[in-house]
Amino acid sequence: MRERSFPSAWAPPYFRPVFHLTGRMLLALAAAMLLPAGVDAFTGDPDWRAFLIGSVITFACAITLMHVTRCRLSGGLTLRQAFLLTPVAWTTIALFGAIPLYISDYAQLRDHFTNAFFESVSGLTTTGATVIVGLDDAPKGILLWRALLQWLGGIGIIGVAISILPALGVGGMQLFRTESSDRSEKVMPRVREIATGIMLIYTALTVACALAYWLVAMTPFDAVAHALTTVSTAGFSTSDISMARWDNPALHWIATLFMLSGAVPFVLYLRLVQGQRDALRDSQVWFLVTLLAALIIAVAAWLILMAGHSVAEALRLSAFNVVSVVTTTGYATADYTLWGNLMVGLFFGLMFVGGCTGSTSGGMKIFRFQVMIRMLQSQFLRLLYPRGVFPRVYAGRLLPDDVIGSVVVFFSLYFICYSALTVALMAFDLDFLTSASAAVSALSNIGPGLGPIIGPAGNFAELPNASKWLLCFGMLLGRLELFTLLILFFPQFWRG
Amino acid sequence: MRERSFPSAWAPPYFRPVFHLTGRMLLALAAAMLLPAGVDAFTGDPDWRAFLIGSVITFACAITLMHVTRCRLSGGLTLRQAFLLTPVAWTTIALFGAIPLYISDYAQLRDHFTNAFFESVSGLTTTGATVIVGLDDAPKGILLWRALLQWLGGIGIIGVAISILPALGVGGMQLFRTESSDRSEKVMPRVREIATGIMLIYTALTVACALAYWLVAMTPFDAVAHALTTVSTAGFSTSDISMARWDNPALHWIATLFMLSGAVPFVLYLRLVQGQRDALRDSQVWFLVTLLAALIIAVAAWLILMAGHSVAEALRLSAFNVVSVVTTTGYATADYTLWGNLMVGLFFGLMFVGGCTGSTSGGMKIFRFQVMIRMLQSQFLRLLYPRGVFPRVYAGRLLPDDVIGSVVVFFSLYFICYSALTVALMAFDLDFLTSASAAVSALSNIGPGLGPIIGPAGNFAELPNASKWLLCFGMLLGRLELFTLLILFFPQFWRG
Repeated sequence: MRERSFPSAWAPPYFRPVFHLTGRMLLALAAAMLLPAGVDAFTGDPDWRAFLIGSVITFACAITLMHVTRCRLSGGLTLRQAFLLTPVAWTTIALFGAIPLYISDYAQLRDHFTNAFFESVSGLTTTGATVIVGLDDAPKGILLWRALLQWLGGIGIIGVAISILPALGVGGMQLFRTESSDRSEKVMPRVREIATGIMLIYTALTVACALAYWLVAMTPFDAVAHALTTVSTAGFSTSDISMARWDNPALHWIATLFMLSGAVPFVLYLRLVQGQRDALRDSQVWFLVTLLAALIIAVAAWLILMAGHSVAEALRLSAFNVVSVVTTTGYATADYTLWGNLMVGLFFGLMFVGGCTGSTSGGMKIFRFQVMIRMLQSQFLRLLYPRGVFPRVYAGRLLPDDVIGSVVVFFSLYFICYSALTVALMAFDLDFLTSASAAVSALSNIGPGLGPIIGPAGNFAELPNASKWLLCFGMLLGRLELFTLLILFFPQFWRG
Repeated sequence: MRERSFPSAWAPPYFRPVFHLTGRMLLALAAAMLLPAGVDAFTGDPDWRAFLIGSVITFACAITLMHVTRCRLSGGLTLRQAFLLTPVAWTTIALFGAIPLYISDYAQLRDHFTNAFFESVSGLTTTGATVIVGLDDAPKGILLWRALLQWLGGIGIIGVAISILPALGVGGMQLFRTESSDRSEKVMPRVREIATGIMLIYTALTVACALAYWLVAMTPFDAVAHALTTVSTAGFSTSDISMARWDNPALHWIATLFMLSGAVPFVLYLRLVQGQRDALRDSQVWFLVTLLAALIIAVAAWLILMAGHSVAEALRLSAFNVVSVVTTTGYATADYTLWGNLMVGLFFGLMFVGGCTGSTSGGMKIFRFQVMIRMLQSQFLRLLYPRGVFPRVYAGRLLPDDVIGSVVVFFSLYFICYSALTVALMAFDLDFLTSASAAVSALSNIGPGLGPIIGPAGNFAELPNASKWLLCFGMLLGRLELFTLLILFFPQFWRG
């Protein structure tokens, strides 16, 4: 009797598996909190208590939640359950991730829960916008926890992009449904193996990145903290001036390379490791690389001609900052808003692009631009030949109509959300450039915006608190590919 | 022999009808130039010569062009010819419309052909952005010519929207193909009669508007000049401070009403005149009216609460400026950029909307938003019920897939063009708000932008010349619904 009545009051039986799985993820989060606790204990920072208490609270809540919602998961999730899982998990983890920040001794986060939650959401969504001023002197544990949240968020979104979004058919992601299942059935029969493989690659890339950073310039701690946020294309730094603190060209090139490595579909690495060399011919990756090369050369040329930089310096500055924005990392080595209005406009436009789907980067994603180009081509051809049939091909396969429809609608919805968020931010009397760039930066999970307040040299600390909550919503909206979050606002979702 | 070789060298036989029809339109333009010539002669302004010379040049060129490209038009136009006609006619007429401005005695237009051409394009596309400072003291002939260009542009675009765009299937306009032909075949068998009917209604509305202006506050000249640019939702004024010069609430309400009258599909007036009362139930019009009502109340409430206006004043200011932007007229009675950043953001968003299709207003058009909403609804439903079928209905009829596709692609293309134009304008080192608002103002054919330079209280005079050419392209692009102009850049258009 107790079984039936008590839990169902606040966890409807239908959605129990969703909360059960969220509980499992909280367990992992509680374990992760022990790392900064250890570091703080080692460096003698009293914040080790905050992380230990946070870990205990999270652990207790996770166990309670799992107990209350215990159920069989062997049958898999229904469509509705899968839809609910992503936003519920992301929001809950962000909430618990904020606890140690809020109960820490660090005044900037302790004094306002808004700040702690903003930092946690910005971490978990791999955005990288920060409200902390004075990162260089911030406690090590806090810095590590921010980096860890981003690293966990990065692997989390790869998992969602591979396993959940294609099944749900969100924003054209059904295109990757058959591909991954087709190929994986031949090569790796079980999802668990794919997950393990990708996890290993993600970890290996992070270790390689940390080693490279350490060898070239950084302290071991900075190397690890930055490696965690580079491969996850997330962008939290341990310095207020981001990567500009290390005046080392080699370091910047290494960061450029590893940011790019995080913007590539992680399934491709798995296929490469298994010796499938056709993975190198992936259409999305080539599009991204070609686009980046063209942009880097153009921006470098501008820097050489207009600002008198040397070729090597111009290429480094251009490559680092272009890759940082397009992969939605958000590191900076220079305040590109000082490079003239053309560059402001260009970087603003680039904030919409994003990396490949199935990677850690945000934005609208390369494959959607590819599909959009095909759609535009066929639209123009249809105008000329109204009775013609124009098959739209992507990566050697015919694009189904529903994929094209989803992608084009995603495109429009992205602009609608961006516009609405911009206007909403302007309601806090923020200026147009700040609002518009904060909106796209949040949606695309980049981090810094443009303009004097939140630009690459700035910070989100001074924004009104309510606008920070709005930006948290924007970050989650973008990270969960719009539909997954917005569908919860449809009455039909909760019926039937 | 001479027949075959000479003209074909610069007017390929295939496209002869296009240039022939353009010649005919130039004849009408030459005749129209006699009006400002007469006014200038009457007021003793020496510019009557400029308009007379302009008229003679235009007349001579028109006759020559029609002779060189003479052909039979009875067979109608092919698809390609129809596509070419719109941009060729619009550009040519704008070019000839600029002649009297350029050869006038008015220094601001005489000294730079760029300024004369910009003013002419801004007129003919019913945009209403001006490079003239000191309109209040400008010669009457120039002021009348600017207004006339807008009036001609207004009726021109109604013609294009009724007869050409639906046939071409541009941006979902094929939706209005069957409707207009179905209904017109029953009621009015001939296109010529529809054209005459709409022309009469357009003229009647203009006359009514002029009379109302004159009765309430304006001089006969100002009344006519403003009536010509009100019904065409175009926005040129005879004062630097636009409608704010007349501090008369009744006048502002009259202007609000007639701006709205120009944003309604003109075919509806025809059907109303013929006693078809179901024209009152038009879905586009109701959507527009509901949207406007909600916006006017919201903005008025803001003005009452935040700026302490009286209810009557707040409603008048709100209604006038909201209707002016949404109908893409561009008149101003107040500098709404001083109403706080929220209002800047809101008005910026409204610049994309536009009036109904088949009217004189620009922007993305109400019906495209309606189709977009249907598409979004069905996308969300499809996520929940992957095997469900969700018929998308518009105005009681099933929306064909190709219409939806065209509309959604139009949506995305609009944002792409807007972004590209913004970045291109920033290359002239214009700030972000100026560039972004100039881009959407040009594309949506509104007129003023936002910010201190080109805002409702500002002017386009100070912009770099090259950026004015870019804006001319933007105005034509928007006026011709993107596809009609962009298709000319497709190599396939010129083949076959």
